[in-house]
Amino acid sequence: MKTLIELGQNAKQAERQLAQASAKEKNTALELMADGLLESVDAIVKANKLDTKQAKDAGISDSLLDRLTLTRERITAMAQGLRDIAALPDPIGLVDSMWTNEAGLKIGKQSVPLGVIGIIYEARPNVTSDAAGLCFKSGNVVILRGGKEAFNSNKAIIKSLRDSLEKSSLPSDAIQLLEDTSRETAKEMMQLNRYLDVLIPRGGANLIKAVVENATVPVIETGTGNCHVYIDQTAQLEMAKSIIVNAKTDRPSVCNAAETLLIHEDVAAEFLPVIEQALSEWSVELRADEKAEKILKNTVPATETDWETEFLDYILAVKVVSSMDEALDHINRYSTGHSEAIVTTDYFAGQRFHREVDSAAVYVNASTRFTDGFEFGFGAEIGISTQKLHARGPMGLPELTSSKYIIFGEGQFR
Amino acid sequence: MKTLIELGQNAKQAERQLAQASAKEKNTALELMADGLLESVDAIVKANKLDTKQAKDAGISDSLLDRLTLTRERITAMAQGLRDIAALPDPIGLVDSMWTNEAGLKIGKQSVPLGVIGIIYEARPNVTSDAAGLCFKSGNVVILRGGKEAFNSNKAIIKSLRDSLEKSSLPSDAIQLLEDTSRETAKEMMQLNRYLDVLIPRGGANLIKAVVENATVPVIETGTGNCHVYIDQTAQLEMAKSIIVNAKTDRPSVCNAAETLLIHEDVAAEFLPVIEQALSEWSVELRADEKAEKILKNTVPATETDWETEFLDYILAVKVVSSMDEALDHINRYSTGHSEAIVTTDYFAGQRFHREVDSAAVYVNASTRFTDGFEFGFGAEIGISTQKLHARGPMGLPELTSSKYIIFGEGQFR
Repeated sequence: MKTLIELGQNAKQAERQLAQASAKEKNTALELMADGLLESVDAIVKANKLDTKQAKDAGISDSLLDRLTLTRERITAMAQGLRDIAALPDPIGLVDSMWTNEAGLKIGKQSVPLGVIGIIYEARPNVTSDAAGLCFKSGNVVILRGGKEAFNSNKAIIKSLRDSLEKSSLPSDAIQLLEDTSRETAKEMMQLNRYLDVLIPRGGANLIKAVVENATVPVIETGTGNCHVYIDQTAQLEMAKSIIVNAKTDRPSVCNAAETLLIHEDVAAEFLPVIEQALSEWSVELRADEKAEKILKNTVPATETDWETEFLDYILAVKVVSSMDEALDHINRYSTGHSEAIVTTDYFAGQRFHREVDSAAVYVNASTRFTDGFEFGFGAEIGISTQKLHARGPMGLPELTSSKYIIFGEGQFR
Repeated sequence: MKTLIELGQNAKQAERQLAQASAKEKNTALELMADGLLESVDAIVKANKLDTKQAKDAGISDSLLDRLTLTRERITAMAQGLRDIAALPDPIGLVDSMWTNEAGLKIGKQSVPLGVIGIIYEARPNVTSDAAGLCFKSGNVVILRGGKEAFNSNKAIIKSLRDSLEKSSLPSDAIQLLEDTSRETAKEMMQLNRYLDVLIPRGGANLIKAVVENATVPVIETGTGNCHVYIDQTAQLEMAKSIIVNAKTDRPSVCNAAETLLIHEDVAAEFLPVIEQALSEWSVELRADEKAEKILKNTVPATETDWETEFLDYILAVKVVSSMDEALDHINRYSTGHSEAIVTTDYFAGQRFHREVDSAAVYVNASTRFTDGFEFGFGAEIGISTQKLHARGPMGLPELTSSKYIIFGEGQFR
């Protein structure tokens, strides 16, 4: 089992070659990795059975067990994911602007890889090939540290990917797995400034919090989404209902699901019963403020904690507001800055919502569920940034790049 | 004296209003601040005299004393600096791309302020108005923490700026000074994640190191420049001489000055004596490797430490290399990733240098001294980033922004 330092040294060795690899070299390798995954299906499924058995013995929930499980279909989808990444444009080498300065230097800003990326993630083993593929395509070396529940699965996937890289022109150390899944090593990884250029945590709120608090390596914070839908007094009932039902129930376990409904008092009495009825089909539990409680049939009182919580479940906090000011204050106080939506027919209300809500994605008349790299049309997603530095919102391949200035002189000096 | 927490709370109060301020409001306030500085010249000079007296008593060096000193001329230049910032285009509110996704949503990526920026800096009090002006123009609230040597000067400058803001339509808490200059409070500031969105250290290597090691707030690392000039075997002697003399001697105390000269062995015997002669006019001390020592008249042997050191002085390390590979290996091993230059007439050597050197600014046939926001044509500079996340190289106003996605829907859901 290699130490983190050894992985770091290997990564640095591989960095220069991968950074300069052509799109053709990288795409050929990605196709080899996809072929390799298909050839390794039996080995991966076998390794995954070890993980799922241990997980069952430890009594994990059905939904976690489902996330952990790899089937032939899921591995085929992982392979297809790598081919899809190969088909995307290479984000490296773009010179998106070039100009001539006063001294006559031509100055171009060119996209380059970030370097070595560390990814700390939790149970889902398909993240392994997905994250590895995205980092690889963007010319970045990656060190992956998955959850211990998926240890055997991750090891089998990484072995397959690295075996395929051996057949390519690019270094297999471009993709490495940290096999030591202890907490101490995770913390060591968060402070591995000498070898890591960036750290991206992918997982639940506790993981993200631990990384933000402990990391000295630059971090891209992802994921936590306490998302709001605000229905103003001019909203159309049908549209409001469709959007909140979709935002809450389409997939409650993901970060772009809505957690709080805010509704203007002028329409609360008319709209809330219809919305309650629609949500009851999904057995959504409503946690209401005093005003909403008076209108809704079946609720529990909302606490301060409820406004702050990303339920990730069939639970919705509901608050009646007397003005847009009150809605905006609530959002800017409790939101995690992920995604918020207004439902309105008032042009100026939409403009104001766009301007005054300080979140990564601000919607007028659409479900928060669209905050996603694929839905946005990026063709890929490494995560959704909820920080303001470097990248904000869904991150595709361009968000995995840095830049350098290339300067063409003819002997200039100052 | 306000605590850091109080400053943080005030900053958050001011954040929303400043983020939404129009360019006109911000520019008017910047002009008021410039007028105010001119009216406060006497008060600022008086406060500065307290600082310089203490500094003299403590026996600081002449160059540090010079940096610390504020004269009427320097304060006039600070005021002009604010007017120059007012004249720059507003970096906020730009929607640099907008598209329609498969679901028919119009998705635009709009520039927004980062939020609250913390700046930790050292002796030069003119940084106070400069950094405050740049943050303000980009809609960011700023908390400044200057060095204790410049405490009275900084306090007088900030008082003037805030008094001017009182006359404007924008909140004076947009610009605040942390008056507690203890080390403990600096560390507290580095972990003020609740109130600070970004931390930018401006100063020497020790300050930067302390910030990178201690900060949990996202940091933009600036400044350290162990810059290299490589003269290849096809270089023109006159051009090589001009570039290395300029890069070393034009202003040795700044981060874009050259610290190491690499020269190809084929031209070392011819070029080095000419370069030594030229540098001797500036009394530059040469620290040479074995091969260079044999050619140069007056040198000391270079140690491992010399290759790693940003001298910031009239000292130059010199190494003779036998190939471009050796030069690239040396650069990629010792460089801090700031600025490197090649002097060559060989087209392919220039291409390769651009590609294989992993630094913020990579020059062919020009002095490293051009790495500067003003020289690049940005009209401003908050610092030079040597990290890869968020921004790399000279940072102007656009580098002080984040983005949000504004989405125009017509009832779409997934």
